[in-house]
This record gives sequence, structure tokens and C-alpha cells, in this order.
Amino acid sequence: MRFHTEYLTVNTKRQRDYINITGEVEAALKKSEIREGMILVSAMHITASIYVNDAEDGLIQDIDEWLERLAPYREDYRHHRTGETNGDAHLKNLLMHHQVIVPVTDGRLDLGPWQQIYYAEFDGQRKKRAIIKVMGE
Amino acid sequence: MRFHTEYLTVNTKRQRDYINITGEVEAALKKSEIREGMILVSAMHITASIYVNDAEDGLIQDIDEWLERLAPYREDYRHHRTGETNGDAHLKNLLMHHQVIVPVTDGRLDLGPWQQIYYAEFDGQRKKRAIIKVMGE
Amino acid sequence: MRFHTEYLTVNTKRQRDYINITGEVEAALKKSEIREGMILVSAMHITASIYVNDAEDGLIQDIDEWLERLAPYREDYRHHRTGETNGDAHLKNLLMHHQVIVPVTDGRLDLGPWQQIYYAEFDGQRKKRAIIKVMGE
Repeated sequence: MRFHTEYLTVNTKRQRDYINITGEVEAALKKSEIREGMILVSAMHITASIYVNDAEDGLIQDIDEWLERLAPYREDYRHHRTGETNGDAHLKNLLMHHQVIVPVTDGRLDLGPWQQIYYAEFDGQRKKRAIIKVMGE
Repeated sequence: MRFHTEYLTVNTKRQRDYINITGEVEAALKKSEIREGMILVSAMHITASIYVNDAEDGLIQDIDEWLERLAPYREDYRHHRTGETNGDAHLKNLLMHHQVIVPVTDGRLDLGPWQQIYYAEFDGQRKKRAIIKVMGE
Repeated sequence: MRFHTEYLTVNTKRQRDYINITGEVEAALKKSEIREGMILVSAMHITASIYVNDAEDGLIQDIDEWLERLAPYREDYRHHRTGETNGDAHLKNLLMHHQVIVPVTDGRLDLGPWQQIYYAEFDGQRKKRAIIKVMGE
């Protein structure tokens, strides 16, 4: 069994942002020379997510508004007593989940026609990391 | 290490539907002859989910109503400017997540007593696919 | 490839509770002697979740209140016609997802600085189980 591990560094200009990282995951797969297996793509922070969905700008804005409705910024989160102001970013992370597994078949990402891998930042403007771990043969 | 990959094709009569696919996953495991490992079950579309929960019809209706409350159909999603009308199906997919990992121990699905694997369709009446990938030894 | 499987038993005093199980996952990794791979941590019940987030008590209360807002206790869930009263616990499980994959690199949990692994109980005061399955080399 072979393993290949990379760390992706992200530093968004905006506090919330959605970045298509499908190319980075494909590049990691190529370096790994793995033909069958899977790739774990996982945010290493608790205020960011990895998800799979469409690369369509209107939808990304819909997602952002929807997240703000279900997990809104509020001043009175208990978490803010620690001095933090990012309680909503933790809840958005939980809602969207922080990781995906991408299947690898015949040396390629075995995704459906519209499936793209995104890094979703909910508390940006600082250096954050995600792990890409390819496992297989 | 061994791998066994199958693609499940689904075409629901209703726009939204919930299909118990535990039997299909078990059949794939049997074909794989894998005794220890895991199975990735993952929707290949961005308007469908895979989840694990109870095979109880009342609960499934509760889930469907709850999803419509949290990620409702709306005409004014920005995504609809592309000509699509399925913005809510994308959000439901994100809420329910598109994949699960099923552990395999001693040649069987290592699930709890009430855990059943479901394919949840949010934009049906067309051919959709899910991948079942068994990995292990 | 090596596998190591453990079952964690949980019995919370409260109906809902949040338990940091990072130490248990680390102990399972140590026993496995695996240096590269991944660990599946998965609730074996449909009214409990596994998630990764911060070990901060205020935040945990925020999460609990937020879950009750998005997936509230209600008497009139259809699921309750079976005699159960835990419809909300099923929905909370779906919202929070029931499993995570923890990457293993150089013999350690490859988590970010604030990432802790939690078992979230939504229908406690009874014996529940989670599986910890380490896979790798």
C-alpha cells in the first residue's frame, strides 16, 4: 500500500470564501502514482470545510447566504467569552462537514460530471491548512 | 490490498425519494471477498445524498419535511439564473452530505443494529449514479 | 495492510452530551502500531454523532442550543407513532453526521492544532457504541 500526503495552505482575502481545489487534489494524485484507492481531503481547522458540489458562482452565493441564515453571526455566542468572535464559523463548519473522501479508479478522481472539490473558508484572512492524503496502490 | 468498484444506477419516479441500498452494499461486499476494510458509498451527483439512519417510514417523512424546512424550494436562488430550478436540491445535498464509509469486519458490514444505508434523491426522475468502492483484504 | 478495530461504549447521565474521545482514538492508534493510514471513528447508533471541533465548553453549549433550534424536540414527529420520542435525535444525527476519518501520519493523529474528536449523544442514558477502526501500515 502506498501513501502520499500533502498540505494545502490557504489565506483568503475575504473572511468567507469558496475555493475550487479539484486541481490541487488531481495534482496530488498524479504525484502519488496511485491507480486504485481513495483520497482524504480534510480541513485542519475548525472554522473551514471541505465539500463537493457545483462550480457555479450563483450557487456559491446561494450557499453562502443559506449558511448565514442557518448558522448566523451573532454577538452573544458563549464561545465569544473566550475573546473569539467566530462562533458562527464553528457552526458553519459543523453544518458543511470538514472532509470528503474522493474515490480513485484507474488513476483518476472517480467523480460525477459536476462534482468539484471545494475548500470553504468561514474565518479567513489568516493562514489555514488542509490535508490531502492519497492511499492505495 | 484489494479493491472492488461498482456503480449503482437510480432513477426515482418521484422528484424526492429515499431508497434503502443496504442490500446492494452487502452484495458488493460479498463479490469483493474482502474480510477487513471499508466501503465508500458516495453519490456521484450534487443533488443526492448517502446517509445512514433508520428504515422507518414515519421518520423518512419527518426527514423529508425537515429538509424542506431548512433548505426549501425557492424560485429566487441565484443558481436558477442558469436555467436550473434545483437550487434547493444542492443545499439538501450539502446538509445531508453525499457519502458514508461503512466499516467491514470479519466479512460483514460492521453497522449498529438500526443502521441502514440510504440513497436520498433530491432531484430525481432521471438516471443518477452512486459509487460503491470496497477496499481492504 | 494492518487493521485494528475497537468498540467504545458510552452511557451518558444526561440525555444529550458531548464527550471528547481524542484520547481513546490516540490509544487505539498506539495499540495498532500503524504509522501511515487513517482511522474511521463512527457512531453505531442513529441518534449520536462523531464530529471534530474545539474543546471549549462555551462553544459546546452554543452547538447544543443551535442543534435544538435547527432540529428541535417536537411531539408530533411521525416517527413517534412507533412509540419512540426521539425524532429530534435522529435529525440532530443527520445534521452533525455520524462519522469522521482521522488521517495518520508518522504514527500520530494528523489533526490541526484545535481539532478534537467528539462523540455527541442525542438520546443517552443508555449503553451506546462507537467503532474505532485503524487501517494502514
